[in-house]
Amino acid sequence: MEKIVNPDLSGWNRIIERPRLKNEELSGICKDIFSEIRKSGDQAVTKYTWFFDKVRIERLEVDKDEFAECEKAVGSDLKEAIRIAMRNIENFHKLQLSAPERYEHPGGFSCWQEIRSIEKVGLYVPGGSAPLFSTVLMLAVPAKLAGCEEIVLCTPPERDGRVNPVVLWTARLCGVDRVFKAGGAQAIGAMTFGTETIPRVYKIFGPGNQYVTAAKQLAVNYGVAIDMPAGPSEVMVIADQTARADFVASDLLSQAEHGADSQVVLLTTDPSLAEKVEGEMQRQMADLPRKEIVLQALGNSKVVVLQDMDQCLALANAYAPEHLILCVEGSARLAAGIKNAGSVFLGNYSPESAGDYASGTNHTLPTNGNARIYSGVNMDAFVKKITF
Amino acid sequence: MEKIVNPDLSGWNRIIERPRLKNEELSGICKDIFSEIRKSGDQAVTKYTWFFDKVRIERLEVDKDEFAECEKAVGSDLKEAIRIAMRNIENFHKLQLSAPERYEHPGGFSCWQEIRSIEKVGLYVPGGSAPLFSTVLMLAVPAKLAGCEEIVLCTPPERDGRVNPVVLWTARLCGVDRVFKAGGAQAIGAMTFGTETIPRVYKIFGPGNQYVTAAKQLAVNYGVAIDMPAGPSEVMVIADQTARADFVASDLLSQAEHGADSQVVLLTTDPSLAEKVEGEMQRQMADLPRKEIVLQALGNSKVVVLQDMDQCLALANAYAPEHLILCVEGSARLAAGIKNAGSVFLGNYSPESAGDYASGTNHTLPTNGNARIYSGVNMDAFVKKITF
Repeated sequence: MEKIVNPDLSGWNRIIERPRLKNEELSGICKDIFSEIRKSGDQAVTKYTWFFDKVRIERLEVDKDEFAECEKAVGSDLKEAIRIAMRNIENFHKLQLSAPERYEHPGGFSCWQEIRSIEKVGLYVPGGSAPLFSTVLMLAVPAKLAGCEEIVLCTPPERDGRVNPVVLWTARLCGVDRVFKAGGAQAIGAMTFGTETIPRVYKIFGPGNQYVTAAKQLAVNYGVAIDMPAGPSEVMVIADQTARADFVASDLLSQAEHGADSQVVLLTTDPSLAEKVEGEMQRQMADLPRKEIVLQALGNSKVVVLQDMDQCLALANAYAPEHLILCVEGSARLAAGIKNAGSVFLGNYSPESAGDYASGTNHTLPTNGNARIYSGVNMDAFVKKITF
Repeated sequence: MEKIVNPDLSGWNRIIERPRLKNEELSGICKDIFSEIRKSGDQAVTKYTWFFDKVRIERLEVDKDEFAECEKAVGSDLKEAIRIAMRNIENFHKLQLSAPERYEHPGGFSCWQEIRSIEKVGLYVPGGSAPLFSTVLMLAVPAKLAGCEEIVLCTPPERDGRVNPVVLWTARLCGVDRVFKAGGAQAIGAMTFGTETIPRVYKIFGPGNQYVTAAKQLAVNYGVAIDMPAGPSEVMVIADQTARADFVASDLLSQAEHGADSQVVLLTTDPSLAEKVEGEMQRQMADLPRKEIVLQALGNSKVVVLQDMDQCLALANAYAPEHLILCVEGSARLAAGIKNAGSVFLGNYSPESAGDYASGTNHTLPTNGNARIYSGVNMDAFVKKITF
């Protein structure tokens, strides 16, 4: 991790900067994939699944047998953990569903908003080194609560041609009964145009790699909405002398584990804390199974020592972090000054991981500075508000 | 207006279809304009204002003197009407600002959402044959209520190089103090990149012609958000034997007046009403100052006779109209079945025009079938909801 002490303005600009995405180049590849899917449907999806994922798929949709088998493949402890997370996510999101009260004009007319679900939604759940069953919860729970009539889930198959059983079990738990084995740009293209097997949807949700990101941006040109523009995941921690260095280190490492392109930034007013955190990170890293990824991510990462909390707040608002953890005295007071962030975690005992999995808040959040403009996924994302 | 009686499925598809936009061609032109604005800033904006609007602008920003002069140029009746509209819009939108209640988990933690304004927003107000001061109200009132810190308004200058005085007066009434003389793609480009004079913003709002629409779509690729994808304005009226033919005719004509590309559709279960409405339209049209525009718009427009209200509802949901007027017995009952619409007007005494100007609901609404996915502009559009 790079260490920066009391940076001047040009230093601030360098801290705020994100790694640049190769969007234009990927957009060309995605265009080709899209036009082939429009022409050849399922056949094109199958072809690109072979090409990118090296898996031959006979049947794109997960059938009853495969659904049934996941029941045995998932342990009961994990099932219970997922159920608890689901309940919290449901409870938190349910509170967001009420429409504002009616406006009654003294002249004798009234105006109001009513909420209607988006009828057809597509959820994308990435594959890769860690099965993102938490993403299933974060997208399917609000989609169901909103009352979306058609919920389609696409996720790349594993090497054996099957969907990860935990992802599948979670999908069924959430009431998502149409799951398709397709990943990357081909999954996004299939949900954009529809194929013989995969239905066209109105809005596509979910994280993904650079191909998925570029494909979602492209899908917008074909009249499909997306949850938000995406980029690599990131956390910013603001810490003072009251912070627990071992906790802060864990927070930073848990984000660095997400992927080699993750960004991790620590802002602190206490130079000695910065040192303690770095020591703790070295110590904790020794035990991490994903150490290689962590080391790469820390290459993009920074520790910044600033003069006071006002500076920390100003830099956080300029950076607009996806996740912001406040390990400071009076964290609630500081929170009132946060203008731009996806999700904020208050105090030493609110790790990002709680929000990633189980506290109830959504983990699909704006990255890449987009928290200046966009909310994370919430109930608003699955509905329209019609005025009457 | 084309008349269609009891259409089969292929007939439905033809009714649902919108005029196709020449987006790709315009997108190329907008790209050129954008890259010149990035390079030459104000100079490029001024050049394109001359090229497209045939007006030479010395100073892009409206100055104090021009602001002061609009006070005299606007009549007191109009001022009072605008004030009334503003109050209703404020009252209706204010109700939308409350964040959902806190989720208190029995385990001792809590999660909640807080609302934060988008700091920098750009409002686009089209010029042309009718000065859209109502659009100033619809965008500036919620932006102010949300607490957006920097509100920039761009609108094309009139022939004399000045901004329409009613637009300017309304902007000042709403507390928008930075108004720039720029229209079309050059205005959108200026707010996307910023120039020496016109500030860069995070999100751009407002209607416009095909250039503006294409430029807004393009702006998204440069990290700017937009309110929604746009298309020509449209109204659908569902009417039964209880409808007043003269009112329905006025509703259809008032939408047709918007522009030559407007779409107007009447669905009815009563063939004799269809005839009466057509007769009324002929009669009322004689008095319309914008008759030429109306006649062109009616070329895209349709009267559809269907067998029952269920069919009307199904076709309306498939069409997803920007404006939907229900002139039927039990309009509230029918409204409960509306899944896709921008704004719905209930009963013979709720004309679209009320919502266009003064009832308090917003008139910036999803067109082109986008009401399947998007809400109209409301308070959500000017804020983010951060989870804590």
